[in-house]
Amino acid sequence: MPITNRRGVLTGAFGAVASQLLPTAKAADAPAAKDVTRTLARYVVKATYADIPAPVRKEGVRTLVNWMGAALGGSSHDAVNHAVAALGPLSGPAQASLVGRKERFDVRTAATINGIASHVLDYDDTHLKTIIHPSVVICPALLAAAEWKPVSGEDFLAAQILGTETALRIGNAVYPNHYDAGWHITGTAGVFGAAVAVGRVLKLTEQQMVWALGLAASQPVGLRESFGSMNKSFNPGAAAGAGILAAILAAQNFDSSDSMIEAKRGWANTISAKQDFREITEGLGSRFEAALNTYKPFPCGIVLHPPIDAALQLRRANKIDPNSIDHVELKVHPLVLELTGKTAPADGLESKFSVYHAVAVAIIEGAGGLKQFSDRAAKDPGVVALRAKVQPMVTKGITEEQADMTIVMKDGRKLHQFIEHAVGSVQAPLSDADLVAKFTELADGILPAAQAKKAMDACWSVEKLASAAEIAATARG
Amino acid sequence: MPITNRRGVLTGAFGAVASQLLPTAKAADAPAAKDVTRTLARYVVKATYADIPAPVRKEGVRTLVNWMGAALGGSSHDAVNHAVAALGPLSGPAQASLVGRKERFDVRTAATINGIASHVLDYDDTHLKTIIHPSVVICPALLAAAEWKPVSGEDFLAAQILGTETALRIGNAVYPNHYDAGWHITGTAGVFGAAVAVGRVLKLTEQQMVWALGLAASQPVGLRESFGSMNKSFNPGAAAGAGILAAILAAQNFDSSDSMIEAKRGWANTISAKQDFREITEGLGSRFEAALNTYKPFPCGIVLHPPIDAALQLRRANKIDPNSIDHVELKVHPLVLELTGKTAPADGLESKFSVYHAVAVAIIEGAGGLKQFSDRAAKDPGVVALRAKVQPMVTKGITEEQADMTIVMKDGRKLHQFIEHAVGSVQAPLSDADLVAKFTELADGILPAAQAKKAMDACWSVEKLASAAEIAATARG
Repeated sequence: MPITNRRGVLTGAFGAVASQLLPTAKAADAPAAKDVTRTLARYVVKATYADIPAPVRKEGVRTLVNWMGAALGGSSHDAVNHAVAALGPLSGPAQASLVGRKERFDVRTAATINGIASHVLDYDDTHLKTIIHPSVVICPALLAAAEWKPVSGEDFLAAQILGTETALRIGNAVYPNHYDAGWHITGTAGVFGAAVAVGRVLKLTEQQMVWALGLAASQPVGLRESFGSMNKSFNPGAAAGAGILAAILAAQNFDSSDSMIEAKRGWANTISAKQDFREITEGLGSRFEAALNTYKPFPCGIVLHPPIDAALQLRRANKIDPNSIDHVELKVHPLVLELTGKTAPADGLESKFSVYHAVAVAIIEGAGGLKQFSDRAAKDPGVVALRAKVQPMVTKGITEEQADMTIVMKDGRKLHQFIEHAVGSVQAPLSDADLVAKFTELADGILPAAQAKKAMDACWSVEKLASAAEIAATARG
Repeated sequence: MPITNRRGVLTGAFGAVASQLLPTAKAADAPAAKDVTRTLARYVVKATYADIPAPVRKEGVRTLVNWMGAALGGSSHDAVNHAVAALGPLSGPAQASLVGRKERFDVRTAATINGIASHVLDYDDTHLKTIIHPSVVICPALLAAAEWKPVSGEDFLAAQILGTETALRIGNAVYPNHYDAGWHITGTAGVFGAAVAVGRVLKLTEQQMVWALGLAASQPVGLRESFGSMNKSFNPGAAAGAGILAAILAAQNFDSSDSMIEAKRGWANTISAKQDFREITEGLGSRFEAALNTYKPFPCGIVLHPPIDAALQLRRANKIDPNSIDHVELKVHPLVLELTGKTAPADGLESKFSVYHAVAVAIIEGAGGLKQFSDRAAKDPGVVALRAKVQPMVTKGITEEQADMTIVMKDGRKLHQFIEHAVGSVQAPLSDADLVAKFTELADGILPAAQAKKAMDACWSVEKLASAAEIAATARG
């Protein structure tokens, strides 16, 4: 199988590459259901930085840059302030930094809070095949561990990529059933990735890594009902903390089952109606899911990106007076209404889960940035009036990454735009320059511009750092 | 519905009281699926010590005594030593004590470790209707919180009972499907109880308690595949820590959904194929599941108790030379083999999940205590030889609380014993004197006898304590 990279591979719907190549397996008849946990543990313990192909490493660096920007941007959010107030009094020694803030906490506490910060704006990364946002669980856990037990930049990047690979492959094994049931897969699959990344820093043996995966499996975090509340960002934060807990216990030989992922009463069979264990064990070291990571151009639910892209393109190509719009017809995939069906979002956080808001604000303001998903925008009378005219219709044949929009004007004119692959997808990825601009926007007002640039440069050049702890040092508030 | 107490209510199989009275509801048509989380939150915030009937309080005290004994007994186990080594370096201020040990940690860390200690011997309590061991999640969280934010003994007991009630009712709503699927229900339902108990100590408002329940719902802990490894005892420990995390965040207004338990993509619908929300909301304040708690006479999986009881009764009534036994026929419920089917347990921890071992050792040694589930007993040649002759057969009509044993001697004699309700069940509960004896056995070698008695007395007289922190102070190593 070829190494996939962000430009080289054509995916169908939300990245069906691996799924198309591998016929669906049932747990009952899958020969691969033996030694799944051990096979994965062996790989992630043995693989080295040099074993990871350059394009995969490059995507790992882009993931880190994007993560740090998102974490800085979210670091002053109320959710983070509340979490600091709650967890600070219980925190242990100042082992690890909060991104964009002055507090320093023990590794588990710091990871939990940085996880919340990096997800709360919904401006992070996405593995489109599974809707997992891998960095917001793995990077907070790894960065905290790297301050506690220093590792080289190369080892840091390898740990990040191997943790990401773990989370995404496990996600593939149970998606879509697991997600459809109601799990916030970022937390439930992500915890494995955090355990692996931290386990690499702690130099776990193969057997200890098996246990770390088992203890991680015991702590799935997150339900989709939380979307639109602070609880959503809690999920990756708590999963980061849970992954650290799994790794530090395993490092002390606190044991678990040897087959927690694949056993009859283990993780995959208990938490999902679908299990394709070959997604976890096949092609380790040659096929890299981590290379399929993408970065959000808009700070909101990923399924909203095609409709926003359509609205922005129409707005750019036409003069549109919002008062002259009769209604907006929008053909979408069912997940759009399932995930972002809030018709009357009360605040910025809720507006990230409203297709009505996203389309209205994009048409009116010609943008889909942080300002468009703020409390101000959610309450803007013009946006409120227009969102009532947005008519999303679930339409057969429209995939998750497509959108078909027609703005019908009061004078009868129709403005039409079809989106095949939204900006930010694997097929139309953000460029490195886009990521720089995004980072700069997110760090604005959090760190002085010179320090922000230093923090970003530390991420871009992670592979050259003698100690990855420098990343945390530069990003401290 | 009458207030149930441990002697006054006849249950069918493992306590089908409420299930028989309430026809099974489906989520889709259940009118009670509205405001489940809020109704529960309102009750647990408003209820007072005086609102709890005396027999329920009395059972709460017995639960506390039994829990403290189990925690002391497990406090020197390797699993606890490993957890202390792992978590100690990350711990915050010395806010709370470890039972039976000298270390003091932050509340979340102390609760996690005490949770592990109190479950690791499988010598705790059981709500037989759901196989939830409520105290091992709720008491560690509550005791740690009570040292941090002192509360009176009366308030402590009320918090413990309301937390227990919460966990057991939520368990009822999804049992048996949820448990059958593979979840370790003690951790998945228990986390709600810990959040409520700690939330009471923190004096959460109704809205904050709704959020605490939502954040607890986001952190289910534990899979049955962990049984027989240290990971099993990790589950209640981690759930205790997760419950504290939920409560302290909610206290700082970190918000969640208002309907996390009952929503379409919320806890019950995501984690279980069965949801009977009336089990959660009906009869709050008049029907008490907490009063149905039972205490293990044997330190092993609860489904082994009827077979052990049968073996002990036969051994008491007959002279049995193990070498003269041809084989042992044992008719059991399917869960016995599902949960305790290990044929060749390698050590004491695994032996707790082997019906073969449990029956063999009980016949040979005439006991089923800590010494019979030790590494020594698991490797005893006589036990190993006899366990190969134990023939459990899943038999239709045999309930989880029954067992039908026939020891067939080489000379053709047959010794038969049928168990309707095993010792320790709701129908044949351990007396207060039994609990005193059990506590004394468990504390032996951990605390000096005089201090052990003081710690036990503090539990028995919890209602008279000005500060419940005294319980932790007396039980410190």
